[in-house]
Amino acid sequence: MNLLRPRPLDPRAFAPYGDVIEAGAAAHRYEINEGTTTRFHDLARIEPGRGGRAIVSIFRCRAGDGSPVTIRMMERHPRGSQAFVPLGGGPWLVVVAPPGETVAADAIEAFVARGDQGINIAPGVWHHPLIPSAVERDFLVIDRDGEGENCDVIELSVERVLDTGP
Amino acid sequence: MNLLRPRPLDPRAFAPYGDVIEAGAAAHRYEINEGTTTRFHDLARIEPGRGGRAIVSIFRCRAGDGSPVTIRMMERHPRGSQAFVPLGGGPWLVVVAPPGETVAADAIEAFVARGDQGINIAPGVWHHPLIPSAVERDFLVIDRDGEGENCDVIELSVERVLDTGP
Repeated sequence: MNLLRPRPLDPRAFAPYGDVIEAGAAAHRYEINEGTTTRFHDLARIEPGRGGRAIVSIFRCRAGDGSPVTIRMMERHPRGSQAFVPLGGGPWLVVVAPPGETVAADAIEAFVARGDQGINIAPGVWHHPLIPSAVERDFLVIDRDGEGENCDVIELSVERVLDTGP
Repeated sequence: MNLLRPRPLDPRAFAPYGDVIEAGAAAHRYEINEGTTTRFHDLARIEPGRGGRAIVSIFRCRAGDGSPVTIRMMERHPRGSQAFVPLGGGPWLVVVAPPGETVAADAIEAFVARGDQGINIAPGVWHHPLIPSAVERDFLVIDRDGEGENCDVIELSVERVLDTGP
């Protein structure tokens, strides 16, 4: 099996693909509301693209069956960014590959995000759809609405199997 | 005391102020990712306004001390919408008043949002800053960055006290 081992998500490792949305990563943080609240400011490059607008949706991802996850395809959104922020719950998996006309199987990377980490995928970055966790869970998604085709799908010539064991 | 009794948040009651961001409220929902995920599509009118862009931040609101909350001021953002989505946790409080030059004390409304409900406050709608819960908690915030002053604050001539008792 062509195993793909996830590594911990952090902003530097994820930089080629987009942003990590987390409180700790804020370049700018400051106190607001008379000191009752800290604002971690502007955590992602939201790019609705030409002729598009940023929209907010919820993705409800059903629980998986616990069997190993095989990565057979990837998708990309050339016209806009797409952010995923878990609405509660524990760690979750992210699978990405660099932008380009195709996806080289050995260029695919997997990350384990903490439950308090979201991501923002830059336009054109290949990624796998949400990977089911042990339980059903919701993600807030910020992506693009607008004219033009905005989802390319590619079938992989070499499949990868996520290695999430100890 | 001039008590203000919160009522349950629902999209119809909140319509004069903006949107409720919740899975159940989606006018459009459909299956994606080969049926593993439901997309609750386009849940809020995100309005970055002229010359602005939508940005994503995290607000970390410290725990309150449990004493009754007095509403002494309100604020508004005339140039853009502002969305708050809790990142886990239970119910939380929302205090709003209709747009206009001033805030009539008896026009203020309070809502109890469930932990799986966010809100999007329309441009110009008066609202109180985040009200501390019993524990520190994080909210994803989607609002506006751009030129121009975008925060008006008004001191209330008549204070209201949030009545959150049984």
